[in-house]
Amino acid sequence: MFEASERAGEPPAGSKAEETRSRVLDVALRSFRERGYAKTTMRHIASEAGVSLGNAYYYFPSKGHLVQELYATVVAEQARRATTLLAEHRALAPRIAAAWHAAVDSSDAYHSFGSEFISEAIRPRSPSSPFSAESAAPRSVSQALYREVVAGARPAVPPGLRDDLPLLLWLAQLGIEIFWVYDTSAGRGRTRALIDGVAPIVASLVGLARLPIVRGVVDDALGVLHRARA
Amino acid sequence: MFEASERAGEPPAGSKAEETRSRVLDVALRSFRERGYAKTTMRHIASEAGVSLGNAYYYFPSKGHLVQELYATVVAEQARRATTLLAEHRALAPRIAAAWHAAVDSSDAYHSFGSEFISEAIRPRSPSSPFSAESAAPRSVSQALYREVVAGARPAVPPGLRDDLPLLLWLAQLGIEIFWVYDTSAGRGRTRALIDGVAPIVASLVGLARLPIVRGVVDDALGVLHRARA
Repeated sequence: MFEASERAGEPPAGSKAEETRSRVLDVALRSFRERGYAKTTMRHIASEAGVSLGNAYYYFPSKGHLVQELYATVVAEQARRATTLLAEHRALAPRIAAAWHAAVDSSDAYHSFGSEFISEAIRPRSPSSPFSAESAAPRSVSQALYREVVAGARPAVPPGLRDDLPLLLWLAQLGIEIFWVYDTSAGRGRTRALIDGVAPIVASLVGLARLPIVRGVVDDALGVLHRARA
Repeated sequence: MFEASERAGEPPAGSKAEETRSRVLDVALRSFRERGYAKTTMRHIASEAGVSLGNAYYYFPSKGHLVQELYATVVAEQARRATTLLAEHRALAPRIAAAWHAAVDSSDAYHSFGSEFISEAIRPRSPSSPFSAESAAPRSVSQALYREVVAGARPAVPPGLRDDLPLLLWLAQLGIEIFWVYDTSAGRGRTRALIDGVAPIVASLVGLARLPIVRGVVDDALGVLHRARA
């Protein structure tokens, strides 16, 4: 009788399995960076990682699952980079810029693959969409980062904005990422300049929201946001 | 010797050619609405329009060319609908809402095809992109509409905003169209509500820009916009 791990096409259990999974993922992410998404095949990944095709499919049933892993990897890296920067800044503008720059820094190695990714992710019901059920885990890591950006800011963000600003900053990040996909400038300099330009404007608008005359418009805008999400 | 129009695969000249071209286009647009983009083939279009496949390709060398025609058709319809509404309103908020609603009205028949279209259009260098060289003609019709929205508003839009607001309203329309693609509510009610919510907020913000303290932030934001376009 065979042990489970000795059956053809089945992967080994325990730490060996973790190691294999991690190797397959590393090879896939490198291939996404170097060959692009369309040219990365499961067959190529399995061969490079030195595992059988069946074994590769066992860990990642489709390229879509690898993209989910990529999203999780990029978001974890964004959080790691941003957290270091957030410890150095109390003012809202540099805190916002830190989180946005960290998003660009952590995905820049995948820039050439960005346009293929966005074209796939923007389809309604795409599991790669940042709004999908499948993306819940990385989305919540990313949104938690923006809650930290807002909660730690001094002077404090006005109470009426404190709850909604993290979501707005995350949505703005998605907009910046669309701009970044189209950005062909050296070192993505135009995206960097956009971030450095927009972050202080957002902070100024948050400051203006303390004025009663502006406050009314802000309340109207938040009302529209809540109804749009409902 | 053959006349040009008698050669195999070549279309007839003059008004007959116009008529054929128009028939092929009508069939294609109907197929986009009813079968969707992916399932619309040139072979199917040619057969439905009663022309040879070579003849269909003569008028529209690819499905991409048909999408360009669709874009032009939708924008012309948007301009027609909006112009009627603009004659009735002087205030900025209903003028903005009129142009945005007209964008939704004119493309609503193609809603099921919207997600396929946006996924194609968002690729960098896609000829279907609203930013592409190929889309220059419909883009300029659409942007001219927003210049009319702004120029005819009373009270007048402050001079510092008059030049840039049309572009911002057009960019906002692209954002509304992304929301619309995902909108599965009956009659696209959520998109309608979003438009009716956002238009008065934009008008209020334009009014607030008359205050010196707000004016500074607006100038900063327009500076970022100009640098981002450069």
